[in-house]
Parts: sequence; structure tokens; C-alpha cells
Amino acid sequence: MGEHVRFYPDYWGGKKLSYPNVPAEAPKFSRSVVVGNLIFVSGCEGQNDETVTIDSDVFEDQMVVALDKLRFAMEEAGSSLNNVVKTVMLLKNLEDYPRMRKTELEYYQKHAPMLVEDPPASTFMQVASLAEPGFLVEIDAIGVISRA
Amino acid sequence: MGEHVRFYPDYWGGKKLSYPNVPAEAPKFSRSVVVGNLIFVSGCEGQNDETVTIDSDVFEDQMVVALDKLRFAMEEAGSSLNNVVKTVMLLKNLEDYPRMRKTELEYYQKHAPMLVEDPPASTFMQVASLAEPGFLVEIDAIGVISRA
Amino acid sequence: MGEHVRFYPDYWGGKKLSYPNVPAEAPKFSRSVVVGNLIFVSGCEGQNDETVTIDSDVFEDQMVVALDKLRFAMEEAGSSLNNVVKTVMLLKNLEDYPRMRKTELEYYQKHAPMLVEDPPASTFMQVASLAEPGFLVEIDAIGVISRA
Repeated sequence: MGEHVRFYPDYWGGKKLSYPNVPAEAPKFSRSVVVGNLIFVSGCEGQNDETVTIDSDVFEDQMVVALDKLRFAMEEAGSSLNNVVKTVMLLKNLEDYPRMRKTELEYYQKHAPMLVEDPPASTFMQVASLAEPGFLVEIDAIGVISRA
Repeated sequence: MGEHVRFYPDYWGGKKLSYPNVPAEAPKFSRSVVVGNLIFVSGCEGQNDETVTIDSDVFEDQMVVALDKLRFAMEEAGSSLNNVVKTVMLLKNLEDYPRMRKTELEYYQKHAPMLVEDPPASTFMQVASLAEPGFLVEIDAIGVISRA
Repeated sequence: MGEHVRFYPDYWGGKKLSYPNVPAEAPKFSRSVVVGNLIFVSGCEGQNDETVTIDSDVFEDQMVVALDKLRFAMEEAGSSLNNVVKTVMLLKNLEDYPRMRKTELEYYQKHAPMLVEDPPASTFMQVASLAEPGFLVEIDAIGVISRA
């Protein structure tokens, strides 16, 4: 029944997001957790995690940062963005939906061509807010290490 | 470590939801992705996917369309609605909750009797909006190919 | 391909949450469903499930009840809170975020020390509402039976 389980830490401003590296009240989560062939990736948003700032309020900019994080998490776990199988797309503003899909497509064309032909299963919702009022998009994802 | 992974396309108005079959800005996702024994199903809502229209603003009507889609996705993947193990129920309006559970029950009584006795694990939330302002319900689901 | 699948019922006021133990319109879900090594846990909130009442509108109180439910579900399935790998944290009010993380940390320090060092992957959102307007927090979770 057992499978190999691995936790990949997340870092903001160089600090691992676990106590006491960050205050008790701060965000604390792993970037991803791998269970056998599955990769559970924490919600990816548009924050610059080195400076812990939102560098742009332009939707496309935040979306690309979020996708960069997702791609990095998949690669760190020994896989690739091509192997994302499920996303939940969370938007602050419903009117960003078309821009969200267009930016996602362009990113896949560059970094995950298999997902252009066969995109992940996906669920969409507009939320009341993400963790910071300035976050415009968050991508929750599940991937696999290997497709076969 | 590897497991068989299969992508089952979704179609709206006869067009596969991938580029360039649909515009870059359009919804693009697979109906489901199977990873070993798990089936990740894209959020199912009340839209008529042949005409790409919302044919009714009556909650029960949209809920039945959503359940039809979930049932179809499970069957297409070689399983059945009986094998749904987890749902996330997303409602536009909180007051539809009782009607959501009643319609779900009646549908399971007809199409998934095992889920009447033992319903899926489930999480509920009211969202700010679904992908179209007229969508009243969306069902995100995980199922299995086989229970044993 | 098959894996052992088990449904663990949930109970409110001593009644199993399935029809006809509860009305057709009532909440109906299993506490958790186990698929092989994975445990899918239904959203855990701050309701007292014996009396089916919200006993406190203090955020920390509801958060501890929710965490108690998650811990119980993990233990009932033959695992422990240490083996949670993914959470989705749903808040009614965004300003409760710091209190949510602080309460979570203190609970893990007591009941799941491995998650202090390596917290679960996690996604956060503020929702329009949870199932009852008085619910302040809900935790959706995936865990494993065994880490290795």
C-alpha cells in the first residue's frame, strides 16, 4: 500500500515556509508533495517570491509568474509541465477569463506542447479573494511524474 | 512508478476544446484525465455543450445536465457514476443548497445506487461566480475506474 | 489497476449522512473515502456534529473543531494527521488568514509534529460563503495512509 512520499519546501525571500523560519501567522506550505506518481502542487500565484512583492497588477504578468511557479514545481519534482493532469483556475475578476486562457495557451505552446493538444482537466471559479487582495489569479494543480 | 495516463477530450458544438479548434481565449480543457485507477473530471456545469447555450435558468435543470456530464465522463473512462469518490460542489447561490442535495440524491437513486448508501466525500462552497454568470452549479469530481 | 476503496460514513446528531437517515435536502457525504494509499477527506468545518450547532463564532474555536475533524478522519482511516499531504483552506473572511495559520501551527505542534517541519501543499481562497453563513472556515484535505 505504501508509496514514496516527498515534501518539496517552498521559500519566500529565501526563508523556508515553515515555523520558526517564518512567523506563526505567516503562510506556511510546501511547494509540492509527491505521492507515488502524483504531484500535488500548492496554489501558484503572481507574487515575486524572492522579494515577496506583487510586481505588477497586469493580469498577464501575474499569470506568467504563476505558470513559472507551476513549471518549476513540476520540474523540481522530477517531471515537467507537460505532465500536469488537473488544474483549478481561481480568478479574482471574472472578466480576466479570456486573458487567462490565452496566456495559458501561449505558455503551453512554449513550455508544454503536449498540453496544447490535450489540456489538463480543469475546474474554474471566481473567488471572493485570494490570499492577498492584489492577487489576480491562482493555479491549483495535480500532475504526474510519468505518463507511462 | 509510472501508470497509464489517458486524456479524454471535451467537445463544445462539436469542436474539441483545444487550440486551434477553438480560439486562444476560449475554454480549453479535457473532459477527464485518467491516472492509473483515478479519474480527474473537469468541472461539470449546466451548459448544453452541443449548442453551447444555457437552456434553462431553473436550478434543477442545470444540476441534471451537470450530473449527466459527470456520469458520461465516468462511463467514457470505462467506469460508472457509482465510482465517484470525491466531489466539490460549487454553487452560485447559497439558497440552492437544499435543491442541490435533493437533485443529487434523486439522480443517484436512478443512476448510481451505491452512492445513495455511501455518498462521495464532498466539499461545498458558494463562489463569487462560475465561468458564465448564468451558471448556477458546477461539480468537480474524482472517481476511480474500479473499487477493488 | 484496482485498489481497495473504502467509504467512511459521516454522522450528524448520530445519524449517518445518507438517505433516508437524513432528509433528501440535507447534507449527505462520507467523512472520507480511501483509494489505495490516498485518503480524500470531506471539507471539515467548525460545526459541533453531535448537536449540529455552531457553538462559537470565534474563529479559533471553529478552526480547532475543523482540525479535530480532520485528525479524527485521518485516524479513523488508519493513518494520522501527520500524513496530510494537501489542504485547501477556505475562509469566509480574509482577515482571519493570520489566525488561521497560527491556529493550524499550534495544532500541528500538538498533534502532527511532522507537519511543522514540512507542511502540506496548500491552496487558499476566500469564498462567498460556506454551507452555513456562520461557518468561518472549512478545510478540504487529501492524506495518505502511509508515507513509505
